[in-house]
Amino acid sequence: MYDETNVEEERKKTMINKLISKIKATGAPIVVGLDPMMKFVPGHIQKKAFAEYGETLEGAAEAIWQYNKEIVDHIYDIIPAVKPQIAMYEQFGIPGLAAFKKTVDYCKEKDLVVIGDIKRGDIGSTSEAYAVGHLGKVTVGSKSYYGFDEDFATVNPYLGSDGVNPFIKVCKEEKKGLFILVKTSNPSSGEFQDRQIADAENRPLYEVVGEQVAKWGEAHMGDAYSYIGAVVGATYPDMGKILRKVMPKSYILVPGYGAQGGKGADLVHFFNEDGLGAIVNSSRGIIAAYQQEKYASFGAENFGEASRSAVIDMREDIAGALNSR
Amino acid sequence: MYDETNVEEERKKTMINKLISKIKATGAPIVVGLDPMMKFVPGHIQKKAFAEYGETLEGAAEAIWQYNKEIVDHIYDIIPAVKPQIAMYEQFGIPGLAAFKKTVDYCKEKDLVVIGDIKRGDIGSTSEAYAVGHLGKVTVGSKSYYGFDEDFATVNPYLGSDGVNPFIKVCKEEKKGLFILVKTSNPSSGEFQDRQIADAENRPLYEVVGEQVAKWGEAHMGDAYSYIGAVVGATYPDMGKILRKVMPKSYILVPGYGAQGGKGADLVHFFNEDGLGAIVNSSRGIIAAYQQEKYASFGAENFGEASRSAVIDMREDIAGALNSR
Repeated sequence: MYDETNVEEERKKTMINKLISKIKATGAPIVVGLDPMMKFVPGHIQKKAFAEYGETLEGAAEAIWQYNKEIVDHIYDIIPAVKPQIAMYEQFGIPGLAAFKKTVDYCKEKDLVVIGDIKRGDIGSTSEAYAVGHLGKVTVGSKSYYGFDEDFATVNPYLGSDGVNPFIKVCKEEKKGLFILVKTSNPSSGEFQDRQIADAENRPLYEVVGEQVAKWGEAHMGDAYSYIGAVVGATYPDMGKILRKVMPKSYILVPGYGAQGGKGADLVHFFNEDGLGAIVNSSRGIIAAYQQEKYASFGAENFGEASRSAVIDMREDIAGALNSR
Repeated sequence: MYDETNVEEERKKTMINKLISKIKATGAPIVVGLDPMMKFVPGHIQKKAFAEYGETLEGAAEAIWQYNKEIVDHIYDIIPAVKPQIAMYEQFGIPGLAAFKKTVDYCKEKDLVVIGDIKRGDIGSTSEAYAVGHLGKVTVGSKSYYGFDEDFATVNPYLGSDGVNPFIKVCKEEKKGLFILVKTSNPSSGEFQDRQIADAENRPLYEVVGEQVAKWGEAHMGDAYSYIGAVVGATYPDMGKILRKVMPKSYILVPGYGAQGGKGADLVHFFNEDGLGAIVNSSRGIIAAYQQEKYASFGAENFGEASRSAVIDMREDIAGALNSR
């Protein structure tokens, strides 16, 4: 017998539902990018790590881990999610990736939703390997293990459905989710993404990709929103307005706020009328807040408090923009 | 004083020159994909690794490393290059990535050119972090370290020049190189890559990307060929023919031969008149040769010899196709 209650119960556990309920609880549609560039890490943290491990990859990994931990300890109760950027760890080789894993685990202990900013994308069994390694379990003989175990991952769509479907399959099994690159925040993102496509609808490539994300999304729903989301840069608010309509059920992860030039007022179009549908990323604006004039009075020793203050200001900025629309 | 001799001397050391001279020396425009899926690893290798480390991520990592090593030991003298697919290691978390690093190091000891099939791509400082981690050196205090240290890396172009330029910069410094995804070998690669672009030239996206690769390539030359190459799937020979002309100075890495359906005769259009310009990848066709009927007589114990035999057959297949064009 088909048990409708169970299907409903299972759907409730989908990670996109958790993300949305945490956004509502904190009033903060904010994800903090844990992109620990060495130049952000306060001198006293670096000094201690290098004293223990030397100026080695292990020393660098220890420094970024301690830096992350202190930031997370100061903000975990006022944000729904973090987004560690794996490149910033991968540059330090194996020790760096171990710090990535430690960061993911720690954030999950703190009940944060973890979006692995991995921008992976390959084909068939290779995409499946990435999906299994980052979101699912890999089989070893008669056992199975989580590799990195993020809650969401970012995915590059250039290779088409063959690249994305293996990720979707694992998300479905694990009740996790994706954010697929549609229109990225960088200045040259238009080089290929903005190319006008010559067919009856005559629209740019990012819209074509957005339509495909919407299709994937509609087939893979949490409650009100899909667990297949999109990445659209805050730096392109007009395109965000269009893409919001193209992908009504997809959560949009919005990078480019703050350091890259996106402002609160630019963000309103990424949200739906229900005040939901978007989560805005800030990385250096939060994690290196202590280096900004505005928060300099905290001092490098109190960088965690500076980050907390920056989160609160960002929350107000977005709320203000949403209220005055 | 501008020293032209030195510039010439330096250019000679560029990795694309080494790749080409090894292709000439072996007569094999072949790269072997080291994509060690567990189902390819012979039972006796798995058994030994699990006996030592248990059915753990460490056990899996040991199994794929021993498998790789034995294959490399049997073929390193007759091929120019290998292409480890990082996803197949990353799925086993940190221990898997340690096996990737061990494989890269071992292949370099054997004087093979190592193409890291990482398909990374991000923007600005993030792409730079990937580039530094895979091709260059990362700075830690007053020291610097190579993270993974491949010779080439594959890169996804969807984010535009902002994503690619940081890789090119590191390649220039380190005399290494890239293969940029242009037209991938998978069935759904046309979903976005084949979209017709509405401008005066009226051509598909993969050609637009190819033109950009050609531009990047011309500005970054080894001797006859650029160190900025392209990926074009063997499964699309007609598109390969066009792209060969669009990017005359770019080496083309051609996946999709063998298991994915590409044949020797399909490959000829990827080569220039000089018999150079392309390097054909085979993964399971070589590394799991012992599982094919054709090489079954070697037996699982002698999988390395089966791989050697498959390399020789592939070399003949390509040479035959090139000679009869």
